[in-house]
Amino acid sequence: MRNYQKYQKGITIDLPDRQWPNREITKAPIWCSVDLRDGNQALIEPMLVEEKVELFNLLVKLGFKEIEIGFPSASQIEYDFLRELVHKKLIPDDVTIQVLTQCREHLIERTFESLQGIKNAIVHIYNSTSVLQREVVFKMDKEEIKKIAIEGTQLVKKYAMNFDGRIQLEYSPESFTGTELEFALDVCTAVQDAWGPTPDNKIIFNLPATVEMTSPNVYADQIEWMDRRFKDRGNVILSVHPHNDRGTGVAATELSLMAGADRVEGTLFGNGERTGNVDILTVAYNMFSHGVDPQLNLENVDEIIDVYERCCKMPVDMRHPYAGKLVFTAFSGSHQDAISKGITMLRDREDGIWAVPYLPIDPSDLGRKYEPVVRINSQSGKGGVAFVMDTYFGYKLPKPMHKEFADVIQKIAEQTGEVSPEVIMEKFNEEYLALQTPYEFIRMQVADINEEDTKANITFKYLGEEMVAEGIGNGPVDAVRTALKRKIGTDVKLLDFSEHALSEGAQAKAAAYVQMMDVSTGITTFGVGVSANITKASVRAMFSALNRLARLENER
Amino acid sequence: MRNYQKYQKGITIDLPDRQWPNREITKAPIWCSVDLRDGNQALIEPMLVEEKVELFNLLVKLGFKEIEIGFPSASQIEYDFLRELVHKKLIPDDVTIQVLTQCREHLIERTFESLQGIKNAIVHIYNSTSVLQREVVFKMDKEEIKKIAIEGTQLVKKYAMNFDGRIQLEYSPESFTGTELEFALDVCTAVQDAWGPTPDNKIIFNLPATVEMTSPNVYADQIEWMDRRFKDRGNVILSVHPHNDRGTGVAATELSLMAGADRVEGTLFGNGERTGNVDILTVAYNMFSHGVDPQLNLENVDEIIDVYERCCKMPVDMRHPYAGKLVFTAFSGSHQDAISKGITMLRDREDGIWAVPYLPIDPSDLGRKYEPVVRINSQSGKGGVAFVMDTYFGYKLPKPMHKEFADVIQKIAEQTGEVSPEVIMEKFNEEYLALQTPYEFIRMQVADINEEDTKANITFKYLGEEMVAEGIGNGPVDAVRTALKRKIGTDVKLLDFSEHALSEGAQAKAAAYVQMMDVSTGITTFGVGVSANITKASVRAMFSALNRLARLENER
Repeated sequence: MRNYQKYQKGITIDLPDRQWPNREITKAPIWCSVDLRDGNQALIEPMLVEEKVELFNLLVKLGFKEIEIGFPSASQIEYDFLRELVHKKLIPDDVTIQVLTQCREHLIERTFESLQGIKNAIVHIYNSTSVLQREVVFKMDKEEIKKIAIEGTQLVKKYAMNFDGRIQLEYSPESFTGTELEFALDVCTAVQDAWGPTPDNKIIFNLPATVEMTSPNVYADQIEWMDRRFKDRGNVILSVHPHNDRGTGVAATELSLMAGADRVEGTLFGNGERTGNVDILTVAYNMFSHGVDPQLNLENVDEIIDVYERCCKMPVDMRHPYAGKLVFTAFSGSHQDAISKGITMLRDREDGIWAVPYLPIDPSDLGRKYEPVVRINSQSGKGGVAFVMDTYFGYKLPKPMHKEFADVIQKIAEQTGEVSPEVIMEKFNEEYLALQTPYEFIRMQVADINEEDTKANITFKYLGEEMVAEGIGNGPVDAVRTALKRKIGTDVKLLDFSEHALSEGAQAKAAAYVQMMDVSTGITTFGVGVSANITKASVRAMFSALNRLARLENER
Repeated sequence: MRNYQKYQKGITIDLPDRQWPNREITKAPIWCSVDLRDGNQALIEPMLVEEKVELFNLLVKLGFKEIEIGFPSASQIEYDFLRELVHKKLIPDDVTIQVLTQCREHLIERTFESLQGIKNAIVHIYNSTSVLQREVVFKMDKEEIKKIAIEGTQLVKKYAMNFDGRIQLEYSPESFTGTELEFALDVCTAVQDAWGPTPDNKIIFNLPATVEMTSPNVYADQIEWMDRRFKDRGNVILSVHPHNDRGTGVAATELSLMAGADRVEGTLFGNGERTGNVDILTVAYNMFSHGVDPQLNLENVDEIIDVYERCCKMPVDMRHPYAGKLVFTAFSGSHQDAISKGITMLRDREDGIWAVPYLPIDPSDLGRKYEPVVRINSQSGKGGVAFVMDTYFGYKLPKPMHKEFADVIQKIAEQTGEVSPEVIMEKFNEEYLALQTPYEFIRMQVADINEEDTKANITFKYLGEEMVAEGIGNGPVDAVRTALKRKIGTDVKLLDFSEHALSEGAQAKAAAYVQMMDVSTGITTFGVGVSANITKASVRAMFSALNRLARLENER
């Protein structure tokens, strides 16, 4: 690409003794949802009042204690929405409503009107402080910009005095990441002096990456720089508000928490202007998966997706961390095999510590299931097909059978792409369980005749003709083998046998697997049989194998 | 969320003298696309051979010099695809083909068969080295795992000796991020010794975040730790292969480049298993927007999206950095206003340095346009509507008119969501240009009668009746005003007037705007007129305003 010279190099912060790279995130920040403001304003179709109410109720249910509901002095819809929350008593006592306003008296006055009846509110004032905005948009010098912030603070203070409820002040030097740090600190300190925060009513300084302009380490440097220098740090809540223009909003949030941030403003799934705000869910699930309580109720990600997609009319991307449809999937054979082994070992270990290859989090902790993790396409191996047969349908195919059946599915996958579990089961039925020709099992009786020998009386059809045969062997399968050999000359050898219950309880059926070789041709195959009677299951499996052998011989 | 205790805390690296936070990215790494391997294997419908060829050709066009095309020894489709690339001579001389294989002789032998006729190839061997995979999947100790890697290296060396072309070795300690660093280094060093790299044929050590398990600073620490300790570092290319499970794949890549990585494996738009691989495009555009040449040809993002979506059958998310449909948009009024001012100032400044609020990159550098940046919904302000009228249609509405017309559009937006430029223009026509009642302009003649005065003869209809009037004023508009007052008693005052050409050249039309007040009621409005004759344009604007005044009076 040419033209790269027209861009300025990224900012860097001179902070050689930075501490954040040595730190870890050990507790959840204060979360503030801005879905109803930053999120809503960036929608192709902004929410209607009833959609806002639905999303608000979801946010409350998820455990957000601070929710920015809009800019009521600038938008009648947002004003009406806030009044509806008040009239319908939808705001729990422990939830603080946040409202945004510019630093202008008529807007601040109207903002306080919109808040009537609310017990706890954050009034969030902002003005743009960056070099670019000062020069291009406002054509003001630093002192003029600072004056806007101070006067806004004084106005909020004036209206707060006569307000019947608790007002906390939030100030954002908007476009903070494009502002000289010294100037950002200077403006914040002036606001702090004008407001007079206390340890009981702290001031929130929100330092937005209004546009993400740097790699996330630089944002962390900026946050640590400010964190170290705020006056009366105990009276200050340091809030971050990252956007995602460079695709590193989540990282910027995490590194800024290490750098000293106490509070995060963001949205569900990172909705918001342009590339969006930071996705609070991803940050929270990241914490959770490192053993930190995220202080949010995120056990049902599908419900969150459902409400979000309905209200915002935006889809959640298929690869969105934690929430995307394809996130808990493994198409590759070796991944499928490792996951399968990992889940088995987890069950065996019983210490409860999650450790499964390729699954950094337990899908069931998000209300999802294991089963759909392994998905079958033409890139999948035999382990994946066996995993699907086991987790969806309870069939534990013996290891040497995996390839035989997976080859059948592979051929379908090469033609059609992904193969669903239902199609796999259908094919399993067609290939193994439903075969009735040339051999059709009808009924049988077995009796042990002495310590070593079992006798079988079997009624079956061969090429449509019903017949009865009798044989003796070292068990039922061997006895049936002998009977068939005597009656119609079938000459097969039993290579492998296994059987297991398909479900629990006395009514459970058993699945039996036999591997047989046709002695004359050397062809081998598996057969599968199912019955409530374990003996019949094994004989049905044998008939299944015989029919497959007949078919394979025809295909040669 | 309960259950968080079942997860282990994240890894940390003891590296107090880490250098990467002090560094910046100053040049592009070697890019290696793994779209045809990691990307393809994670698709619901993996690509057909013709789709692979189309995507391969795109990757070549974008300037990728290393392309991993698959795992030909394990998949017939991938084998056939590689042979097709060879037979059709689709591989340029400066592009190196990379193929993946496990460390097993029959697979390595088959891999070399697939490479026949290729001039430059990277043979990429891997085995899993993490604690979890050793214990759960392979049930092997460290020495056994290391032996797999050494033997694989020796096998590649054996087959490379008889191969007619240049073979470079890439070794991946798969699941590197879950591997003890000392052990990862130990295995790499053993492979290095077995292979014998030189400055002319360096060995590639690829350190994958097969699953992203930590915040990106920890990955950077891991990379810097390895970077400092590799033996004969000049013979080594340090490659990273980040995934995105925690939503920080781009950040991990950037920080690892600062930590010493020379090479990045990733995909277009971050396709790949689960949450995907790192998105190379975002990393490259991030560099570009900081004035670093990304060494890729990414001037036409829409073409990349088009081929990607067709071949992979995966959509690009609407908020995907740089590429999403909503990324170069601003719905908020204040953002729109700032962008509008920023673009104007950019044109005035002429130094060519890009600096526009809310637009970290020039959309036209990606083959996109400015116009669709500003989008109008019920959250948008008057500046946005004026911006659309200007950039799409050339009408530069006078500032006091912005609110008047924006209020009209706002009402539509509240009902229908986003309002397209076409609808805005339609409404502009309906509200200003097409009004014909009660006043309908027919024709006029003007003549200056002395230094101060102009006389107008005007033919018009009033309430359907054609009439002629004559008046004198200090210019054409004033003369028409006088004529109308004399003829039918219309009493209006002219408050504002402006006019500009709508396009260039002699045939260009002019647009005129007049703001008028009805003297009896005090109601004011703008009117707009268009004509190739600037005098007629202004009189048409006056008629437009008269008709609007009549309507506004009726509506009272």
